[in-house]
Formats: sequence, C-alpha cells, structure tokens
Amino acid sequence: MKVQGVHFRTIWLKPEDAGVVQIIDQRFLPHQFIIEEIRTVAQMATAIRDMHLRGAGLIGAAAGFGMYLAALESIACERAAELLKTTRPTAINLAWAVDRQLRCIRELQDAGEMVGRALQTAQDIADEDAECCRRIGEHGHALLREISARKHGAPVNILTHCNAGWLAFVDYGSATAPIYAAHDGGLAVHVWVGETRPRNQGSKLTAWELGEHGVPHTVIVDNAAGHLMQHGDVDLVIVGTDRTTRTGDVANKIGTYLNALAARDSGVPFYVALPSSSFDWTIRDGLKEIPIEQRGADEVRHADGWREGELVAVLIAPEKSPAANYGFDVTPARLVTGLITERGVCAASETDILGLFPERAN
Amino acid sequence: MKVQGVHFRTIWLKPEDAGVVQIIDQRFLPHQFIIEEIRTVAQMATAIRDMHLRGAGLIGAAAGFGMYLAALESIACERAAELLKTTRPTAINLAWAVDRQLRCIRELQDAGEMVGRALQTAQDIADEDAECCRRIGEHGHALLREISARKHGAPVNILTHCNAGWLAFVDYGSATAPIYAAHDGGLAVHVWVGETRPRNQGSKLTAWELGEHGVPHTVIVDNAAGHLMQHGDVDLVIVGTDRTTRTGDVANKIGTYLNALAARDSGVPFYVALPSSSFDWTIRDGLKEIPIEQRGADEVRHADGWREGELVAVLIAPEKSPAANYGFDVTPARLVTGLITERGVCAASETDILGLFPERAN
Repeated sequence: MKVQGVHFRTIWLKPEDAGVVQIIDQRFLPHQFIIEEIRTVAQMATAIRDMHLRGAGLIGAAAGFGMYLAALESIACERAAELLKTTRPTAINLAWAVDRQLRCIRELQDAGEMVGRALQTAQDIADEDAECCRRIGEHGHALLREISARKHGAPVNILTHCNAGWLAFVDYGSATAPIYAAHDGGLAVHVWVGETRPRNQGSKLTAWELGEHGVPHTVIVDNAAGHLMQHGDVDLVIVGTDRTTRTGDVANKIGTYLNALAARDSGVPFYVALPSSSFDWTIRDGLKEIPIEQRGADEVRHADGWREGELVAVLIAPEKSPAANYGFDVTPARLVTGLITERGVCAASETDILGLFPERAN
Repeated sequence: MKVQGVHFRTIWLKPEDAGVVQIIDQRFLPHQFIIEEIRTVAQMATAIRDMHLRGAGLIGAAAGFGMYLAALESIACERAAELLKTTRPTAINLAWAVDRQLRCIRELQDAGEMVGRALQTAQDIADEDAECCRRIGEHGHALLREISARKHGAPVNILTHCNAGWLAFVDYGSATAPIYAAHDGGLAVHVWVGETRPRNQGSKLTAWELGEHGVPHTVIVDNAAGHLMQHGDVDLVIVGTDRTTRTGDVANKIGTYLNALAARDSGVPFYVALPSSSFDWTIRDGLKEIPIEQRGADEVRHADGWREGELVAVLIAPEKSPAANYGFDVTPARLVTGLITERGVCAASETDILGLFPERAN
C-alpha cells in the first residue's frame, strides 16, 4: 500500500542489488519510516527475532527471503533453516516457509541453481501472500458495498482491533484488505482504530498505515468500542485472527472478544478476515484447546512511546503491583457473523467452513 | 485507609494548625505520596480545578473545607461560593456542599461564629461521606461473605474499573468499600484492577490504594477483562458510577459497559456501588438522557507516566491521526445485577430502587 504517496510492500528485493532484501523496520512506526537493508540470513533472523517485522504472513515471507540470502552466502540450507525456525518458534508460517524452501533447494547440487530456485520460491511466497490478501479484500469489498448502498453512500464505519493490516502481511493485510479495496474503489469508508493495549499495535501501526494510504480513520481507546456501537456509530467490525478452529472459534489479540460482545449487543455484524493458512484444522473448541500466551508484566505496567526523538517507556502503575498480561483471547463462533477468506465469505460454523474448504472435510 | 501503615483520609484539618487543610496531591500517585497544605480558598479552588484531588465525594468535602478557609480569611461567603462552584461546573457534589455551607453561615453576623459553623459543616460533610461509604462497605461485605462461603474460603476474585476507591471519597470509597471491609474482616480477596485507559486511574490510583492497604491485587489492561471472566477467574465485578438513573442505568468511566457485557456472557454478577447522592432522580433512560463528555484527543494519542523522576507524556499514535475521547459510557440496567447503596443492596429497577428510597417515589 502507499507510504507518502509511493507504493510499498513490507519486504522486497532491492531493485538495483539482488544481494539485498529490504524491509520496513516496524519498531519505529509511526514515528519514523525506516527501511532496513538485510544482507545475510543472520541479519534476517535478528529482524524476525527482535520484531523489526511481525505478523504471520510477513514472517513467512521474511523466512523465505532469509533462505535465499543463506543460499547466496553458501550456508548449508539445513543450518539456515534451523537458525530461522528458532527465532519465533510458535510462528506457524515461519516453519512452513522454511520447509517449503528446503523442499525446493535441498536436493540441488549447483550453487547458482540453488540461488535461483531460492529466490523464485521466496518471491512466490511473498506474491502468494499478497494475492491471498487481495482476494480477501475483494470478497470483503462486496460486503462493504452492500452496507454503503443501504446507507445511500454515507461513509461506512468499520471498527478494527490491533494490526491485521498490510504491515502484518506482504501487502493489503487481512482485516484491512476490504477497507483498502473499498477505499481504492471509491467507496466512502471511515475506520475506528482501537489502540490495542498493551502494545498499541492499533494506534501505532494500523492508524499509521491507514493514514499513509489516505483512509479516513479515528483512534480510540479500546474501552470506547462499546459506546460507539451502542450509538450506531459502527456499521461492522472486521478483525484478524491468529488461529481459527475448524468450527469458527477465533483466537485473536486480547480484547477482540469484548468487541464481539459489544457488536452482538448492538446488532453490529462482526467479521473475521483470514487467509485460510490461519485455520487450525485439528481443533474444534477454541476456549479449551487454544493455549493463551502470557507475556511479561512490564508491558502492562508501562507504556512505550515517542518523546523528544526517542522511544521511551513510562511507568503507569505502582512499580510493585503485580500485573498479568494475556496476549490473546478467544471469541466463540456464536459471536462471529462471518469469516472473510481468500475463497469467499462463510458463516463461522464447521459446515459452512468446510463448504469453502471441502478438502479439509476428512 | 492505610498508607505505609498509617491511617489516612483524603482530606483533613492539620491537627496542630486549624488554619491549614491537608490533602493528598493525587497528581503524583502512584509515584510520589505528597501531602499538600491548603491555606486559602483560592488554593483550594486551584486544587479542585487542576485535579490535585478528584472524585465526587472528595470534591464535595474539599468545597466544604474551601468555604471554611474563606470564612477564616474573612472573604464574603457569596464570593467564595462563586469561586469554588466555577472550578468544575458539572460536579454535582461541589455545588451541593457549597450551598449547604451557604445555608449554614450566610445569615451569621459574628465572624468567629461563622468560622466555627463553617468548620463544623465542613467536618460534617466529610464525616457523612465517610460514613456513607462505610455502610456501602458493610452491605457489600455481606455479598462477598456469601461468595467466600460458596468457595470454602478460597480468595474471592473481584474485578473493578477506574477508581471508585477511597481516593475519590473521604475514606473507604464506593466500589472498594466492600473490598476493604472484607479484607479487614479477614476474608481472602483478590482484586483485578483494570488500568482504565486513557487516564489510567485504575493502574495509577486503585492499584496504589489497594497495595498500600495490603489488599492482594493484579493490574490488567482493560482488554483482558473478558478473557478472565470467560475462564472463571472473576467471582464478581464491582464498579462505581458517576450518575445513575431512577431505573438503574449507570453512567460510569468509559469501558464499564464492556465489563458488564463480559460479566453477563460468563454469568458473573455485576454490581454497582454508590452513595445515593449519585442518583439522578429526574431521568429514566440513561442512553438517551445522559450526555457523554468528550475530552481532548491528546489523552488518547499519548500516555502519561513516570520516567527518571518526572511525569512525562509519550506519543503512542501518529501525531496527525484524529482521535476521539469519550469519557463515559452507559451500562443499561438489564446488565446490572444489583446496586450497593448506603441503605442496602437492591436490583437495578425503579421498583426496587424506590423500595430503598421511598421518599423519591413521587
């Protein structure tokens, strides 16, 4: 999507130097737009581990390019795979991308051929991620078009949580894809951006990307979502998901469940946008079967932000008060109006999901 | 309640100098415990306006003591009343306390008599506020005792939002009064403290007062409340209220409604603790009739906290992104299990409320 009027992806091969992969260093957003040059698989591993980039789709693409850089460096592909996989052990797309590269290049003897194949695979992974999100956008766009027609063209108000935007993928995003498609297609939209404490990926990342692309939006504290829905100021909610059961339960950033409850109480449709790679086909009960990560208490006791040209943390609670920090919550399928996937929109039920993905029916 | 092992109120006459009123300067909590000395009605007006103190009950008591200081200074009581009333025009307790003082001292001719009556009235207002909260605590304590018995003495987990604690009153607080009563009575309790963005009065004030009094507690981001209730980690919710309709609709700090929705979805009792002075007997429909204050956008785009010995604000959103900042939301009576008042506990319905307050039935 656009940054300062220029189209960007989150990761790309430097046009004038095929030995360099460029990424947006997201740690400094929204305060500084920094492009980082990555020349070695070790640098890519650092970028993934230290969260210069994040998001399921983007981590997968970064791992793909990491394997390419390893091939350029003539590092054994098994060793590179090990290095990349241990950076964020729970990121499913990471292992998936690395294994895909291994299948493509492991048996090759010729170094030049290996480099070529690794580059092609890395670009395929990135292109497929972008294409998947573009399709999610197309299907979601149709939903927004219907609402816009009912409102006689008045702006469609969408509420979102956290960052399921293009910064989490290669392009378009999941929850944001319908918004960008609608906006670029000439539909009037306005986005309520929940700040998403404790890490504020909503106010820091989603607000930034919407602003740079020119999409009207307003930042709110997470607490305000219910009030807005109660007063008819939200036409629909679209969020992303970290993991979705085959029955449609959705694990996403902490607070998503509260948004879903408010949407139901006010009759606001609640949609989850996802590439089908985020389905976990092996589980049926999200509340019982999805473990919820607990993170460090200091993220809750502090807020990180920008002050006088640097990133600093300020203390917002008693230093000695205990704090708990749950990364995700589970929104039961009963609260989800529909899932927006690359194959189309379906209800959050096993039957309807399998209607779109019949190959998973066994 | 206790601070560093010593009992404090939020406002008191300096024991060794009846010309000085002392308050806790809440602007620096939880980072520094500062006692401010107030010697003039002008200083008291500043303390109220610039929020050295806040909270319905405490503002009323501060106004009462402000009128006493004016009498000591031989300032005309009408002029002092005007000065105090304009500091926070929407604070109902403020006008109420000032008018009560005016009724007591306006007709008096003797300056000494005026000072004596003004002091007595100021102390009465403070004592009555504390006594009202003590009774709320007693009635709420009974509820907690029942839950504790059902749990065979295992800690009762209470979730609260914002600061309806003793710092908002003269002592005990409203939502916290049952907690302090139970804790002091030997019941095992644990409090989940929602940080309450954007001003974080939960993590800054409630966590501090619970910690100083020795009550076990854990700070959470507001987003985590639903997850905790879903998993059985909350036995009941107790919050305060800024304004309550005669039908039991409750206007309280933004985000309260989301807590109420989560409580209903998980079958957790949701109680509102209030001195009956916070009833607005003239209205029936909270959603339609209670105007919701919108505050400055910078509170949302920034977080205020402590860093290297000073209070600073850090930017947590794009500087140019618009932000909306709703101060309160309305929780409909249908989501409220009960009201804990100084006269007892009742359901959030006009009939039950009037059962406790029959004098309002006309």
